[in-house]
Amino acid sequence: MPPKRVAIVTSSTRSPRLNPTITQYVYDVLTSDPMIPTNHNETTDTDPRHITLEILDLANQSLPLYDESVIPASLPAADPTPHYSKAHTRAWSAVVRQYDAFIFVTPQYNWSIPASLKNALDYLFFEWKGKPAGIVSYGGRGGGKAADHLRGVLTGLRMRVVGTAPGLSVKFTGLPVGVLSEEEMVRLDERDLVGWREAGVEGMMRNLGMELVCELDKV
Amino acid sequence: MPPKRVAIVTSSTRSPRLNPTITQYVYDVLTSDPMIPTNHNETTDTDPRHITLEILDLANQSLPLYDESVIPASLPAADPTPHYSKAHTRAWSAVVRQYDAFIFVTPQYNWSIPASLKNALDYLFFEWKGKPAGIVSYGGRGGGKAADHLRGVLTGLRMRVVGTAPGLSVKFTGLPVGVLSEEEMVRLDERDLVGWREAGVEGMMRNLGMELVCELDKV
Repeated sequence: MPPKRVAIVTSSTRSPRLNPTITQYVYDVLTSDPMIPTNHNETTDTDPRHITLEILDLANQSLPLYDESVIPASLPAADPTPHYSKAHTRAWSAVVRQYDAFIFVTPQYNWSIPASLKNALDYLFFEWKGKPAGIVSYGGRGGGKAADHLRGVLTGLRMRVVGTAPGLSVKFTGLPVGVLSEEEMVRLDERDLVGWREAGVEGMMRNLGMELVCELDKV
Repeated sequence: MPPKRVAIVTSSTRSPRLNPTITQYVYDVLTSDPMIPTNHNETTDTDPRHITLEILDLANQSLPLYDESVIPASLPAADPTPHYSKAHTRAWSAVVRQYDAFIFVTPQYNWSIPASLKNALDYLFFEWKGKPAGIVSYGGRGGGKAADHLRGVLTGLRMRVVGTAPGLSVKFTGLPVGVLSEEEMVRLDERDLVGWREAGVEGMMRNLGMELVCELDKV
């Protein structure tokens, strides 16, 4: 059995955006932790307790605002993909089915998650159902309201949401407006990084990672 | 001073959808109540305590998934409209600024509001701020989780959300999939209407209307 695949989801899709930078930070913290079994050779690793972490950016999915004419929860649970009415939904379904668990990295917009994330979630049902999920939020005060809100939505989708949900207070990392190319990433301000370290965010992130590994072992 | 304008917002944008039917029901209940000062001649009415009710359908706004490069809350409060980076945002801003209050009629998708509504809300800030808002939800069990969630988002936008939030349990009104033209509306099943009447939904709706009128009087 190959390692289980965990997607770290970049949830906002506007440009410019801070989300890819925060997602990369989450990836770096998790992959640098020797306790989380992620440092392995993908081609030869056969330990089923191992996981691979991959970044999944919603901006690459070309999903318009929800326009499915079928109800996702009404499709065949074992194989919903071919039954959607739109090609973009079938493509998204095929992507999500490849993963065994998800870490959603979300900004807070108006006390909740961005429409881009709710939209991507609403398109599918059985592709999410029963899979472990973790939440990382960020915002001026850490985005805790978005995290709480997302926990409800993921529970509604019957995902198994783990308890630890780190919130990253972004106070100094600026978002330059209209000057970044698609390729450029916003750089984290060292003061924010220090603040997160002092707040124990890296430890929470590793807890989240270990909780996901434990949940995956239960499957 | 002309009557104040209240928008009853149809929040989902997919097709087919039940939302226009439910929105029309809300409109009919409110305009048929002699206690709510809405039955007037628009051209000659000058009583500032009067309101006009209008249906505002998000499906007519052509808003893509959020792609503004400016932060709505950072624009000039008195006149944000010309400062948005996208033509669709400027158009949406101009529409919303015309209204003095809003009743959001929302379905529940996965324990929350549809992305189409969150998206339309996130595009703007000062166009919403300080205005009275009411919530009507619907769903298999009335959509109460979506209503609670929306209350948080609207509070984050600094709207003055009134207390009464009717929830309509839709058990019998079927949504035919893929057979309705754009023009056709789903018809309400008499059994759902009876259930709402027995549950006191019409009275709650009128309460909501009167609370909005009172809030508008405070402005």
